[in-house]
Amino acid sequence: MTDRATRFDREPEVRAFVHLAPAAAEHEAPAVADGTAPLAGLTAGIKDVIETADMPTALGSAHYAGRHTGRDAAVVSALRAAGATVVGKTTTAEFAYRDAPETRNPLDPTRTPGGSSSGSAAAVAAGMVDVALATQTGGSIIRPAAYCGVVGYKPTYGLVPTSGVMQLAPSFDTVGVIARDVATVARGAEVIAGVVPEPDRNRRNTDHGSHNGRGEPHPRGFSHGAAPRVGMLPAADLTGCAPEMLDALRLVGDVVTGAGAELVELTLPIGRLRELHGLINAYEGARSLAAEAPHCREQTAGLIERGLALGLTEYVDAIAEMERLRPGVDQTLSRVDVVLSPASFGPAPVGLHHTGRSDFCQPWSAARVPAITIPVTPAPGALPLGLQITAPRWEDTRLLGWAARLEALLG
Amino acid sequence: MTDRATRFDREPEVRAFVHLAPAAAEHEAPAVADGTAPLAGLTAGIKDVIETADMPTALGSAHYAGRHTGRDAAVVSALRAAGATVVGKTTTAEFAYRDAPETRNPLDPTRTPGGSSSGSAAAVAAGMVDVALATQTGGSIIRPAAYCGVVGYKPTYGLVPTSGVMQLAPSFDTVGVIARDVATVARGAEVIAGVVPEPDRNRRNTDHGSHNGRGEPHPRGFSHGAAPRVGMLPAADLTGCAPEMLDALRLVGDVVTGAGAELVELTLPIGRLRELHGLINAYEGARSLAAEAPHCREQTAGLIERGLALGLTEYVDAIAEMERLRPGVDQTLSRVDVVLSPASFGPAPVGLHHTGRSDFCQPWSAARVPAITIPVTPAPGALPLGLQITAPRWEDTRLLGWAARLEALLG
Repeated sequence: MTDRATRFDREPEVRAFVHLAPAAAEHEAPAVADGTAPLAGLTAGIKDVIETADMPTALGSAHYAGRHTGRDAAVVSALRAAGATVVGKTTTAEFAYRDAPETRNPLDPTRTPGGSSSGSAAAVAAGMVDVALATQTGGSIIRPAAYCGVVGYKPTYGLVPTSGVMQLAPSFDTVGVIARDVATVARGAEVIAGVVPEPDRNRRNTDHGSHNGRGEPHPRGFSHGAAPRVGMLPAADLTGCAPEMLDALRLVGDVVTGAGAELVELTLPIGRLRELHGLINAYEGARSLAAEAPHCREQTAGLIERGLALGLTEYVDAIAEMERLRPGVDQTLSRVDVVLSPASFGPAPVGLHHTGRSDFCQPWSAARVPAITIPVTPAPGALPLGLQITAPRWEDTRLLGWAARLEALLG
Repeated sequence: MTDRATRFDREPEVRAFVHLAPAAAEHEAPAVADGTAPLAGLTAGIKDVIETADMPTALGSAHYAGRHTGRDAAVVSALRAAGATVVGKTTTAEFAYRDAPETRNPLDPTRTPGGSSSGSAAAVAAGMVDVALATQTGGSIIRPAAYCGVVGYKPTYGLVPTSGVMQLAPSFDTVGVIARDVATVARGAEVIAGVVPEPDRNRRNTDHGSHNGRGEPHPRGFSHGAAPRVGMLPAADLTGCAPEMLDALRLVGDVVTGAGAELVELTLPIGRLRELHGLINAYEGARSLAAEAPHCREQTAGLIERGLALGLTEYVDAIAEMERLRPGVDQTLSRVDVVLSPASFGPAPVGLHHTGRSDFCQPWSAARVPAITIPVTPAPGALPLGLQITAPRWEDTRLLGWAARLEALLG
């Protein structure tokens, strides 16, 4: 752990925290102080929509400034029990939607850090914490992590308990982890998933062969066993991407095939998943937040207005269509080991008022599959781009393994 | 509204409330005071796992006594906006599971009121509030309402926002309403569902004909149109029921056929749904509540221990099987208008330490379909029994309509 003064030097400029624990807290003995605790010695930032018994939880809303709830979210308890030290609450877009906090991108303070988990990504990127908890309903983990050049992981929907986490759209709400590298993300993931480790940890999430038709153990390296298959999206699904993002995807494809993998173009209902996500997100989000209308900001107000205008029939039809689509998505994904796609159209946009677009995250959130973004730097000095990796539902361990291998290949 | 002193006379004996607002609050002008507000003039009790900005939310746990969270749950905001006056927080089994509160059954204080929504059912049965909010993950609305001789309604999973409601097992957690009669339940249901009323309210939930193959409008009375079809469970699914419950089901069947309906015996995977419910409930509940282990009571501790012993593979397999079963359940239910089943094995058991069994509620909670219980009194002076009515998913309006008709036929 570096010295606190050094670690938080950039906070006045970056503004990643809505609340910082008193300096003393960082030096207190953590609940499990021995070095064998899984997260012993790591500091953690907690997105301000996740409850903490000892710090306020303001949901990114001025209306709830200083609000204490008196209970830790399940994921916060898990972090503490694993030896992590919670140093503060990180900024969030209001109610985890789109109204930006004052946070700046540590890579370039004129650019948005993305959102809604703005502070979690920025705090990690600025080296202020080792791990940060974040939430994603549309693209709120993957997008800010990509914009800030760090690693962000959104687990399979349902894998990580959301008890004590503000609800936005419960059909999609998921808690995840942001850190500097895949190894640290994986340590945090294991702790918050609340899964009792099984004898062979590597088999934990991969022994569901009967679900996906590719039940053989995934190759430890690219040169062992059958050639790994890596899914890519067709060009039509990449419309609107910046040239450097398309270049980066080609480069990654070349590296992956050079390492012995086969690229497979997948046909997925990306556009329809995005549309259904938008409708369900608005319907549910509006009903979670309706009472905030008198004091909320512009984007939240728009969500509430759009969502309340949707009728139950539209919602039920969307839920039914989504339930029909998901098994097909799982089936298509089971033809490959992982899928590569952009985390965003390009690097973090200039400006602090918008947190960017989630077009490449919403379809995976809708499908409920796990996703991770790792940074790719297209040229020396250029801003990093987010390479998004996804896998079939529940194959989180496979996903994290692939992310580590790609991180090494591209590093 | 009757006089407060009269209304709460029985509270020292019944103990339905963990917190009662100061007497003055009941006479304050509600947020919407005009008589046209949907719930104007009604008093409401709120189960203590549902957050209230102005009252503590202790989750039925001594550890959280007096805990304030500073925010209303979405359903509480909706009640207030509709003109209801919140008079207090009703008791709950610890963490909405099984460790009983001190509440007694108003029909017979030696008997359990059921749980986990013990106080909500008891407060309504004792005439202390007009409506009460409650939650169900297994049988926590239907069972106590049945034991206390009142009407309890568990909506289709996902219909009512759970924002601000304690999470137990998010695959099943649902917020609903308890009241003295179906008409009052229906008023509360409309408000908490957060559905903007459409021009023809009766069509609100019934215009999903394409989903169920019985898309014709449901008959307004039993003698119009095609004969309604009422589903019943085969005798094997009723094993363990008290003789008076089996008699009551036969009586209701006779009344329904006498009114022109056809009885249809349905084959449903009731036992398997119950088993899968138990497994998923334990896995998720344990991870929601793991941090409560050091200070929780016996039943909660057992849930945490059982749930943490389950591996991810068992959980994922159970989720997958449930996802495969649900469409079949919907399809079978679509062959009939509603299904009749017991709410419980018999009347409220003697004793205050156990809240009773949920065997007849868990399968419907697992299937995510709406359910309502109405009281049937088998003989003068006998304790009431709960007749449970269920309908296909999202057919809540149809369910409430049938409940009103059966209430009138059996009254």
